[in-house]
Amino acid sequence: MIDNQVKVVFTPSGRRGSFPVNTPLLDAARSLGVDIDSVCGGRGLCGRCQVTCSEGSFPKHQITSANTHLSPISETEKSYGLRKKSLAEGRRLSCHTLLLDDCVIDVPAESQVHRQIVRKDAEYRDIQLDVATKLYYVDVPEPDMAVPKGDLQHLLEALAAQWGLNTLTCDALLLSQLQPILKKVGRKLTVAVHKNQTIIALWPGFFDKAYGVAVDVGSTTVAVHLCDLASGEVVASASLMNPQIRFGEDLMSRVSYVMMHPEGVVEMSKAIREALNSLFVEVTKKVNVAVEHIVEITLVANPIMHHLLLGIDPVELGGAPFALTTDAAIEIRACDLDLNINRGGRLYILPCIAGHVGADTAGMILSEEPGQQEKMTLLVDVGTNAEIVLGDKHRLLACSSPTGPAFEGAQISCGQRAAAGAIERVRIDPDSLEATFKVIGSELWSNEPGFDKQTSRFGVTGVCGSGIIEVVAEMYLTGVITEDGVVDGDLAASSPRVIADGRTFSYVLYQPTAADGLCASNQTPIVITQNDIRQIQLAKAALYAGVKLLMDKLEIQQIDRIRLAGAFGSHINVQHAMVLGLIPDCALNQVSSAGNAAGTGARIALLNQQSRHTIEGLVANIEKIETAMEPKFQQYFVDAMAFPNKVDSFSNLFSVLKKPVNKTVIPEISGRRRRRR
Amino acid sequence: MIDNQVKVVFTPSGRRGSFPVNTPLLDAARSLGVDIDSVCGGRGLCGRCQVTCSEGSFPKHQITSANTHLSPISETEKSYGLRKKSLAEGRRLSCHTLLLDDCVIDVPAESQVHRQIVRKDAEYRDIQLDVATKLYYVDVPEPDMAVPKGDLQHLLEALAAQWGLNTLTCDALLLSQLQPILKKVGRKLTVAVHKNQTIIALWPGFFDKAYGVAVDVGSTTVAVHLCDLASGEVVASASLMNPQIRFGEDLMSRVSYVMMHPEGVVEMSKAIREALNSLFVEVTKKVNVAVEHIVEITLVANPIMHHLLLGIDPVELGGAPFALTTDAAIEIRACDLDLNINRGGRLYILPCIAGHVGADTAGMILSEEPGQQEKMTLLVDVGTNAEIVLGDKHRLLACSSPTGPAFEGAQISCGQRAAAGAIERVRIDPDSLEATFKVIGSELWSNEPGFDKQTSRFGVTGVCGSGIIEVVAEMYLTGVITEDGVVDGDLAASSPRVIADGRTFSYVLYQPTAADGLCASNQTPIVITQNDIRQIQLAKAALYAGVKLLMDKLEIQQIDRIRLAGAFGSHINVQHAMVLGLIPDCALNQVSSAGNAAGTGARIALLNQQSRHTIEGLVANIEKIETAMEPKFQQYFVDAMAFPNKVDSFSNLFSVLKKPVNKTVIPEISGRRRRRR
Repeated sequence: MIDNQVKVVFTPSGRRGSFPVNTPLLDAARSLGVDIDSVCGGRGLCGRCQVTCSEGSFPKHQITSANTHLSPISETEKSYGLRKKSLAEGRRLSCHTLLLDDCVIDVPAESQVHRQIVRKDAEYRDIQLDVATKLYYVDVPEPDMAVPKGDLQHLLEALAAQWGLNTLTCDALLLSQLQPILKKVGRKLTVAVHKNQTIIALWPGFFDKAYGVAVDVGSTTVAVHLCDLASGEVVASASLMNPQIRFGEDLMSRVSYVMMHPEGVVEMSKAIREALNSLFVEVTKKVNVAVEHIVEITLVANPIMHHLLLGIDPVELGGAPFALTTDAAIEIRACDLDLNINRGGRLYILPCIAGHVGADTAGMILSEEPGQQEKMTLLVDVGTNAEIVLGDKHRLLACSSPTGPAFEGAQISCGQRAAAGAIERVRIDPDSLEATFKVIGSELWSNEPGFDKQTSRFGVTGVCGSGIIEVVAEMYLTGVITEDGVVDGDLAASSPRVIADGRTFSYVLYQPTAADGLCASNQTPIVITQNDIRQIQLAKAALYAGVKLLMDKLEIQQIDRIRLAGAFGSHINVQHAMVLGLIPDCALNQVSSAGNAAGTGARIALLNQQSRHTIEGLVANIEKIETAMEPKFQQYFVDAMAFPNKVDSFSNLFSVLKKPVNKTVIPEISGRRRRRR
Repeated sequence: MIDNQVKVVFTPSGRRGSFPVNTPLLDAARSLGVDIDSVCGGRGLCGRCQVTCSEGSFPKHQITSANTHLSPISETEKSYGLRKKSLAEGRRLSCHTLLLDDCVIDVPAESQVHRQIVRKDAEYRDIQLDVATKLYYVDVPEPDMAVPKGDLQHLLEALAAQWGLNTLTCDALLLSQLQPILKKVGRKLTVAVHKNQTIIALWPGFFDKAYGVAVDVGSTTVAVHLCDLASGEVVASASLMNPQIRFGEDLMSRVSYVMMHPEGVVEMSKAIREALNSLFVEVTKKVNVAVEHIVEITLVANPIMHHLLLGIDPVELGGAPFALTTDAAIEIRACDLDLNINRGGRLYILPCIAGHVGADTAGMILSEEPGQQEKMTLLVDVGTNAEIVLGDKHRLLACSSPTGPAFEGAQISCGQRAAAGAIERVRIDPDSLEATFKVIGSELWSNEPGFDKQTSRFGVTGVCGSGIIEVVAEMYLTGVITEDGVVDGDLAASSPRVIADGRTFSYVLYQPTAADGLCASNQTPIVITQNDIRQIQLAKAALYAGVKLLMDKLEIQQIDRIRLAGAFGSHINVQHAMVLGLIPDCALNQVSSAGNAAGTGARIALLNQQSRHTIEGLVANIEKIETAMEPKFQQYFVDAMAFPNKVDSFSNLFSVLKKPVNKTVIPEISGRRRRRR
């Protein structure tokens, strides 16, 4: 300390300065631009501005005891400890602590406004917390008859004086709440300010429990994640089946429904909005708060779900030229779409990319950041269409390819949704051609003791998407089907598993017997028909051709990394997928699941407002390829019908087939195909 | 013409320039900044760009025939004439007329974007048409699969290319309309753009019938005026009784209703919104258009009506400190208040001034422009409260004074609304003290033959506001009441008109007789009681005291002009009002009715968007005086109880009483009071 000036250094920012003795720590931090949180504006209510004091960091100055550097624990800090959980050892409220002597102040992560939210997947950068809607506690002066002025004007002036927020407006929908709220706690209230511009919510007194929800509207499943906007953590999640399924299983049948029913758009919009509202109730109940605590929604969806949510007839998306109503990001009041959160709460919908490539793909790009990678990265999200993104930091391309719903188990004779009883993993013995399998709901293989008992409640009911991939890959590896996908009828003579089915042959994946337990009598055999194989060939050819087209555009022969997003991508076995030629050749350890990347993108957009600009910019610059317009697509498609296909060398794949590199993942694939040849 | 350059002068702007031969006139006009209208963007559809050609104005150049200066009548102009009413003689569509030789082009008023709307009251400046919502016809390119893009983005690009509108956004509520509308007329459509920023309405093909409504929500009456936004003309009007009357006759009883009924605000908001919606249907039906043709509403109301319309509990306005929720102007989507106009239509509510001085007063100020006057001007709008504005171009003050509802006929024993059968004019003979009167619904005086027959359908039922003023003034002029407002009981002896009524005396204004016809038996006498006189004294004292207070603040003794606004101001006899001391002394020919000035203000705000900034600025700078805070108010109030009062000299008034200056207006006042004295 020199001339009553105290030196202070804040860590981790390293910002430093000199201040008069008795300067409040929070003021010092702010004047240096140190990133330190506060909702209550220095009133000792919110506890967001906690810091610790490290000693002895000034080499020229002997520091003896922490007590001499900061003012003693104040009454406000003591009463904060009584009301909330006590302040941890050594923690101080910087708003009620005065600088007495030179010191080093550490701002812990949870006291920083822009702290990092750790993503579980270590491959990715953490999310920097920077929410669009922030809370401010404010004390509004009493009205003065001598200077007549509206209470809103009093509030705006108080926000300017106490928080430096000078250009705010207030959503007119909130006007009816203002005076009743002002009356409740002596004209003290907390406001939520959206993008530093608009007051979108009001609560009486001190309030610091604002939430946001990240929403992923899929054709099949709708999922919401409730995030605490203060910590950035997901505090509750919930999902349910998209209620639009009653209007049509897949996207195109919903579009057909709209074309045949004049009220179809209204019905389906209402259905999805009501589903979202019920999910908002569910997630808030889990943490014991009201839906009014939610002030923001971010949302991803494919184009048809996107349009239906907005009440837009998706008919134009059902045929060429697949024109979106809008591809821009949308920011709107949630109540304008009848979504029940806080009355003034906002909804942000990520931008769409093209008629088949929606905000869900934008979410995937935001989450996976292919445009920040040195490595040439392929992102694939498989549904009724496959959304394909390929590129690196220099260039990014996207397209959609019409895989149809075969990968989801639809249009497959024994296909079904991923539910208990669905076969999800399959191995075929190359000599006996007998199959063993696992079903969802049991951890046992079908040839292990106890399998019948474990599955007796639901039986073996069909094959789900990942099971289809495995069984067809195994059929190919064991020679049951040829490279052209024809079931080899000659095998019918030697194996009861291969049976004639009119002019073609089928493979019996599962034949119930009396030994299968109580349910056996109700169960029918599960058979993979020649047509099932054709459906998988069409689907995988479409996917591969789309990828190949983008590789052509980029003039590349090799992809460095593959990330498979969505439920399908999470469950399929990568090598099986590659054996079928679903995805291009790539080092197998560079192929992985991206989980629910679209939903993660929605969460990033919720927690970091800057990311909204990022994805809007990326989407504007992405090169959109329309597969239907590309003459080469058809040729690639035809060539990709074979297994694995006639386009790719699959050098990585075949090196694995010869010499297993990862026994734990695929011990049984290696060598088998060769052995039968 | 020199070197294939043609000279052209546009009148009345006087702008001139040289252009290559064959330049379209509209292009030439625009490049010179000539104010010329167009909705269709030069496609010959709207007919807004009509001009005429004047010849021979270039002294150095001999012009022989109009035909040689402009291209011949084009096919487009001919077909325009076939579709619409033909082009008038000499009129050309400037978008389809090419410059061939030097000429003078006259742009008639109706072809100018910023033309003047003539106000009937010659005292005021015309309204310059400059509407906030403008129409643009636009041709949107077909979607191109090679460059996938949303149809909204196509539309925005087309608006930028065809109209230079580069920074537009579209109200998200319209998204569901876009593609269906694009499909209707080959991707041609008309958009309404609000404040050069936001697309708020869409119509297929060419459309030029956008309307706005100016709304005046009074406690008693709700009035709407439908304006053609192209011409600025009022094309239809309608009004109805404010349905909130069933919750309470006057403002304070409605506030009481809210205080006692938790759902009161919702009920009353719903009632006024439904009333407005029914009026929107009514006015649009009158001109055979749909309510969707309305794209904008501007609205004035007193503070309590203002708050109830917005769904705000007005309870804070019911007592000190009379705090408004907001005093700022409000711009909101009409549908946010459940007002049914075009889905994206906007509502603009003028700013309020103080707790008792509302957007209606702001409308009055916008209409009357006291802040632009050299003369010291007093504006008064009398209702349950009197809103008083006083000032000139240097300074403007406003206050409200609690007159109570006596001037509206309430709290008067025989008082009633202005309806058929209500006495509205009164004369008392100074010698006989007999009264003659006129009632609403009959043009005859009560002593004229045929009066009984004309009034037999409704009878003589009470006295309305203007009648109260006249009868009390006449009672004072004829000495029936003293300067202190006491009915002179001594007169009872000589006149049957003055009768005892307990300890005080009353004046019998009307005594039904058998001769009064069929209704007589149902009719009761109409009597002015001592208490009625007291109510008028209280009301007029409050009004005068408010005016005097503002005169004090401005340190003035004399007012140059008085404008009386509203229904009351339109009907009262100025001299009678001055005899009672209702308004301060002023040259009688400088006192006049301002009609529905508040409603006119709403209309100005509708037709000229700049006026919204003007009134917002004026209101921010106006000095608000709270009468309840002013110690002198009470003294002025007491002193003003007498007739005319004990504050003002009324030199102008007494000079009239001595020497009539205007026999047609008030022949019978002059000299009478003196004669009885």
